[in-house]
Amino acid sequence: MSGMPAIILVQPQLGENIGAAARAMYNFGLTELRLVNPRDGWPNDRAGATAAAAGTVIDNAQVFSTTQEALANLSYIYALTVRPRDMTKSVLIPETAIIDSISKTRSGHKVGFMFGPERSGLENTDIVQANKIVSVPVNTACPSINLAQCVLLMSYEWSRQRKTLNLSDSGVDTSTYASVGDVQKLTDFVINTLESRDFFVPVTKKTVMQESIRNMTSRVPVTQKDIQTLWGAVRTLTGKFQKR
Amino acid sequence: MSGMPAIILVQPQLGENIGAAARAMYNFGLTELRLVNPRDGWPNDRAGATAAAAGTVIDNAQVFSTTQEALANLSYIYALTVRPRDMTKSVLIPETAIIDSISKTRSGHKVGFMFGPERSGLENTDIVQANKIVSVPVNTACPSINLAQCVLLMSYEWSRQRKTLNLSDSGVDTSTYASVGDVQKLTDFVINTLESRDFFVPVTKKTVMQESIRNMTSRVPVTQKDIQTLWGAVRTLTGKFQKR
Repeated sequence: MSGMPAIILVQPQLGENIGAAARAMYNFGLTELRLVNPRDGWPNDRAGATAAAAGTVIDNAQVFSTTQEALANLSYIYALTVRPRDMTKSVLIPETAIIDSISKTRSGHKVGFMFGPERSGLENTDIVQANKIVSVPVNTACPSINLAQCVLLMSYEWSRQRKTLNLSDSGVDTSTYASVGDVQKLTDFVINTLESRDFFVPVTKKTVMQESIRNMTSRVPVTQKDIQTLWGAVRTLTGKFQKR
Repeated sequence: MSGMPAIILVQPQLGENIGAAARAMYNFGLTELRLVNPRDGWPNDRAGATAAAAGTVIDNAQVFSTTQEALANLSYIYALTVRPRDMTKSVLIPETAIIDSISKTRSGHKVGFMFGPERSGLENTDIVQANKIVSVPVNTACPSINLAQCVLLMSYEWSRQRKTLNLSDSGVDTSTYASVGDVQKLTDFVINTLESRDFFVPVTKKTVMQESIRNMTSRVPVTQKDIQTLWGAVRTLTGKFQKR
């Protein structure tokens, strides 16, 4: 499997921006684009036109209806956001995030960088699914970076650091770490079980409480073996699995 | 004087791109924008609209009718080009160029980064006025970077390295180095003198020969004292200045 990170655009609005992001990726050798619920549908002619020489990235883009599905077969996620909310996740600058991601790739992870919609950025429900946050240090008088420019910046850093750190495209092993999808399934099971037992009261705090649980499970990377152990433990604890 | 580099856009075409470049600069704290002969005139409403929070950069942009005038009070110039022509100038990647430029700033230079028009890039007549070339290492299958994205990349690198190298905004001294304008005046004088003496034959080689002269004079940074010495030498050699 390639050591190339996936770029995930959550609910991108303008086809032009998707195309410009694809071009920015391909400028620096990245090819794996995933789209979550693009506003104007898919395929999008304007995306292809703007992508120009990066048409191949657009043609091969995968489209998902939820962030959860888009992240499912990845194992380590970075969320790009200009204003990290009050979350207990590490916040990295692009340079450090890329170094970190290359090290994760080397140790067997399939990595993804997730970007939010143009106007609003990523929502908390998306950010909680990430392992770490990336925040670009910008001038506070002009903090808003265009989506494609943000993708460019990360792609550039990846290309730059990859050369510096001499990352090989091959030889990485993704078998040891649990995918985000597997972690999410377990988390969903826990949350649903808790919900069925009226854990989330008062109802006004439900979202925040669920977010903190997702934050916890996404923060620590777990191996596939860990996941099996956790499933066993959770089923045993919830009584939904009768251990002999 | 501030240690901030100037961004020079030579014959930019679309107002939107000028605005996006201004925003990219201001994202990373750069404010000094110079425009050479913008295609659609100046001021340009679309530039202001696209710049958004970076309107101040647009409002304070300086407009020149020639590259020579735009560079005149700078003393060290980097030309951004994707395809360095056959020129005897150093070609740097962005990272190295920024480190180099910060070192130049520290030793008293006023630095500028020069970008060409969207479609064609910088022409040789502009590139010869630069001290060094910067070329972004890109995927050969998709080598063309959007103007504003290229400005973003250099502004980002500047902001990043500036923090790493702990560059102070103040305390630099520009008095020792000759400005590009002073070097150009001397070069112009030499070229005009040579021309009046039928040096540039055959006429088909005139441009190439003049470019190599400009390349030579722009390659080595000279101090203001050097310039005075050179003027004296050139005038003496050409007989246009009667030394007592």
